[in-house]
Amino acid sequence: MKPETMSVVALAGGVGGAKLADGLAQILPPENLTVIVNTGDDFTHWGLNVSPDLDTVCYTLAGLANPATGWGRMDETWNVFEQMERLGAEAWFRLGDKDLATHLERTRRLRDGEPLSSITRDLCARWGIRHAVLPMTDDPVATMVDTVEMGELAFQEYFVHQRCEPTVKGFRFAGIESARPAPGVLEAIEAADAIVICPSNPWVSVDPILKTIKNLEIFESRCAVAVSPIIGGKTVKGPAAKMFAELGIVPSALAVARHYGSPLLAGFVLDAVDAALTEAVADLTIVPFSTNTIMNLSDNRRQLAQDVLNFIQRLAP
Amino acid sequence: MKPETMSVVALAGGVGGAKLADGLAQILPPENLTVIVNTGDDFTHWGLNVSPDLDTVCYTLAGLANPATGWGRMDETWNVFEQMERLGAEAWFRLGDKDLATHLERTRRLRDGEPLSSITRDLCARWGIRHAVLPMTDDPVATMVDTVEMGELAFQEYFVHQRCEPTVKGFRFAGIESARPAPGVLEAIEAADAIVICPSNPWVSVDPILKTIKNLEIFESRCAVAVSPIIGGKTVKGPAAKMFAELGIVPSALAVARHYGSPLLAGFVLDAVDAALTEAVADLTIVPFSTNTIMNLSDNRRQLAQDVLNFIQRLAP
Repeated sequence: MKPETMSVVALAGGVGGAKLADGLAQILPPENLTVIVNTGDDFTHWGLNVSPDLDTVCYTLAGLANPATGWGRMDETWNVFEQMERLGAEAWFRLGDKDLATHLERTRRLRDGEPLSSITRDLCARWGIRHAVLPMTDDPVATMVDTVEMGELAFQEYFVHQRCEPTVKGFRFAGIESARPAPGVLEAIEAADAIVICPSNPWVSVDPILKTIKNLEIFESRCAVAVSPIIGGKTVKGPAAKMFAELGIVPSALAVARHYGSPLLAGFVLDAVDAALTEAVADLTIVPFSTNTIMNLSDNRRQLAQDVLNFIQRLAP
Repeated sequence: MKPETMSVVALAGGVGGAKLADGLAQILPPENLTVIVNTGDDFTHWGLNVSPDLDTVCYTLAGLANPATGWGRMDETWNVFEQMERLGAEAWFRLGDKDLATHLERTRRLRDGEPLSSITRDLCARWGIRHAVLPMTDDPVATMVDTVEMGELAFQEYFVHQRCEPTVKGFRFAGIESARPAPGVLEAIEAADAIVICPSNPWVSVDPILKTIKNLEIFESRCAVAVSPIIGGKTVKGPAAKMFAELGIVPSALAVARHYGSPLLAGFVLDAVDAALTEAVADLTIVPFSTNTIMNLSDNRRQLAQDVLNFIQRLAP
């Protein structure tokens, strides 16, 4: 099978996941890629339903994302935000004017009873996104971060308001037991030749998706590969490395491979700077592959996606 | 009593009401003026609670109003609106970016259970408005316009979406029977030396306020005067003249004086161009006074307010 004819499901959180999803979308035709996105970070701000990871993925795929921040829209303005500050509204989470329209329209439709997956499909069509983007679930799931200093915090409270400063003790995904995968999620996985776990935070971006899918045996026959979000012991963005360390695990690509483990993973992609860890990954009965995984340019996204697809082809020819 | 020491309650709808309220606020100290504003036009748009008349009055008193349109904010931008259009949201009612913050914050607080009057008081403080602005009620009242061509329409549907084109047969104020005056409304009227009915639409701006207050005998001992919104048979803005005509009444300042009538009104202010109608107004046992009532400049607002206060002083020395 040629890489570009593979049917792929990508699991994605925010920035890193969105970039690899964009790389895959540059290679795979729309019918061959479904991106399943974490919604555990979703929260209510200014009375609006905000889905940060979904929006980052959609804005990235639509070419609307702000490349400097990794979140929000490019060429953004802050006129509503300035007035909200003047009116005394909470100002620790910034919503730009263009971005705000997304939350307004989504909130209105959710209140009218429309499921998030249906709203997302329609918004994607209006943004010109041709590949399928699915929230992991239409049901409410809330990622809670248990911390030493402040007890349990809702994810955005920890992530944005407290700037990831509190020491992490553990995680809880409120509502996950009763959350059903959104329509199309299980069907896409069943129809997939391969599953790509994007370089997103294993603890708070990918785990909620995996726990929503629940029956992960389906992954074992489908050549699942993960791309490490940890490079040289650090994350490009976000608190994944800090979380590993605070949970007593030396942060490294190897720790990520162990986190998912075999038999869930058939293969694991780590950065060339971590090539020394390939043997240790192989010892986990996971096939390692090292390449450049930094996606600072659009070309890098496509190149990493091509490398990952070629790797999958070698794993399951 | 000097005019500037009078305690005055002003009843106001949108643009015309806001301008005279602004003129009164230029003369009267904060403790001597309460503006009671129609909320029958309030509606939900994009899932947000919008109070057009309250906002016009507040923006005008705060010096934030757009002088060209008569509604919305000056130096407004439309970045959210443009994105909302792209997402397929209803676009017949335009909400600017700065204006939107008001609706977002109000909606969030209403959903949290705070009454509109309390939210309005706080927003006014943040905008630097020192005079009291009260919604007529904290309860839901919806002005419905019965039309020949389209049946009954919600007010904004008639006013903005259908551009006042359908022929009016009558009005209904849904919820008015059980609507209680907002906290402070009756107290302000009881404490007032005079009541000024601003040059707002009698049918759809002032009548809802009067019907919410219900017991109008309180007006009779308080020197109530109205300023005609109809000048030379026409309105400066809005459909009041068209409504009179469609209801079979020749539109004129006299028709407005008759609409309120005696004993509700002690005095009536009509424009100098309508001076020929003063005798007919006097025949209604209402004291007429004609002066320039066009408020195209800030100075005109203050001058008309001064003329009205001087007139009241002569009526009830």
